[in-house]
Amino acid sequence: MPTAAKLAWIAAEAAAGVREIEVGSFVPAKLLPQLADTEEVVRAARRIPDLTVAVLVPNLRGAQAAVAAGAHKITLPLSVSETHSLRNLRKNHMEVIGEARAIADLIRSLPVDQRPHFEGSLSTAFGCTLEGRIADATIARLAQALMAAGCDEVGLSDTTGYADPAAVRRLVRLVRGVVGPEGLTGVHLHNTRGLGLANALAALEEGITTLDSSMGGLGGCPFAPGASGNLVTEDLCFMLAAMGVDTGIDLRALLEVRKLIAAGLPGEELYGFTALAGLPLGFDDLG
Amino acid sequence: MPTAAKLAWIAAEAAAGVREIEVGSFVPAKLLPQLADTEEVVRAARRIPDLTVAVLVPNLRGAQAAVAAGAHKITLPLSVSETHSLRNLRKNHMEVIGEARAIADLIRSLPVDQRPHFEGSLSTAFGCTLEGRIADATIARLAQALMAAGCDEVGLSDTTGYADPAAVRRLVRLVRGVVGPEGLTGVHLHNTRGLGLANALAALEEGITTLDSSMGGLGGCPFAPGASGNLVTEDLCFMLAAMGVDTGIDLRALLEVRKLIAAGLPGEELYGFTALAGLPLGFDDLG
Repeated sequence: MPTAAKLAWIAAEAAAGVREIEVGSFVPAKLLPQLADTEEVVRAARRIPDLTVAVLVPNLRGAQAAVAAGAHKITLPLSVSETHSLRNLRKNHMEVIGEARAIADLIRSLPVDQRPHFEGSLSTAFGCTLEGRIADATIARLAQALMAAGCDEVGLSDTTGYADPAAVRRLVRLVRGVVGPEGLTGVHLHNTRGLGLANALAALEEGITTLDSSMGGLGGCPFAPGASGNLVTEDLCFMLAAMGVDTGIDLRALLEVRKLIAAGLPGEELYGFTALAGLPLGFDDLG
Repeated sequence: MPTAAKLAWIAAEAAAGVREIEVGSFVPAKLLPQLADTEEVVRAARRIPDLTVAVLVPNLRGAQAAVAAGAHKITLPLSVSETHSLRNLRKNHMEVIGEARAIADLIRSLPVDQRPHFEGSLSTAFGCTLEGRIADATIARLAQALMAAGCDEVGLSDTTGYADPAAVRRLVRLVRGVVGPEGLTGVHLHNTRGLGLANALAALEEGITTLDSSMGGLGGCPFAPGASGNLVTEDLCFMLAAMGVDTGIDLRALLEVRKLIAAGLPGEELYGFTALAGLPLGFDDLG
């Protein structure tokens, strides 16, 4: 996707009322060339008023780039499955915790008003395609280790689409028991087995206030046509608006953003049911 | 779909542990020729041990056919939107209540051990594409009228895919306040805007024990490709099994039933995410 199209997308989504957007990832351009423009995207997105510009980083080097570009929020994934961690980041748990500590040191070296928010995300928390279910004790220990390393908070990530509503409730309570309610405010869910919004509902009812999703369900790890990866932002926002949860997002404006994405990613399938079915008769998304 | 293929599907789904199946509808064959074999299907399905054979009927005439064929459960839809009722059944509310009374009389004329269970389903309960939102007072009044006419219970039906989890909770409580907890045990949800499983979760947490769904999400009212109609049975069963809810259904066997359906309906798209993604590593559905 051309950089200009990314920026038009981000600007339109922010204008629709989305207040935090993960705009890219500081990973080696050789591995993921489609993200090579992340620095430029962060710099441009920072000029949008009231938008929290978030990025993913795999290590200290990525965090240095994120800080230099001025990202407001940095997320470091730590796969609670060590097998997955070794395959994905080529680092064991201790090494990732070491990166977290180095990133926290970097952030603390900055003037207070320039410090990005630092999240350590517990990936594969609901199970791993290589290891299966991960022991609660491991998840609790790693949540504590991330906070001890200097993260501002941890996140729960269903990287593999294994979560169900009961597991969401259980793990939110488990991790909050370790890091406190302010140490866990966000979850990252996938829709791999169709349970995405049910899991989001369970998270919401547990007091979670940040729900990751992507427009058109783009990204994630689609296994096959129809099996979208991430939660679909449009469907999530419809659910929240219908429930009377004030997200500040104008759903009609958000649905219009799909046109920009389709233009920037010709041939890419956009998921989501609400965009196809339209809004209910008499629906008022701004309450 | 050939009658033999329907029967193979029903037998396989029952063998996988599904204990109640709506096998057809006694509607005029001229209008819906694909359901013209409902009598034959009911007679055959009745021979499957421990299976509750349910049918939909639009009026007394359909109920007479259902009784003659030996259906265990009869559902009469009553659209709480009178505009929709007039368009769909060409009857106003009073006329549909009259049919309910006549059907209840018919059932009471049978020997006790041959009486089918009689449900009056409150269609378009979450809003109507013609009228928009329907007043709570109308829904409560019609629920009471169906019970007074002789229904054993009422159901809540999201015919239009307008429901959200908060509305599900609200309407379940509203109707149970009128008919009691045993007067409402089932909901009929659609996945039109992607909220189907989130709505099912809300219903489950309100104590609902019968959740309508269809294999592959077939049927319902699809607006467009990707926007399936009914809840997908396979995804619903995966959610319940993952949550530790004992449905008695063997999920692996259920997923195999898709092959029979695909063979009987060549070219028809089957929805559902779990079938594409597969079951999680270490998942034990009878566990």
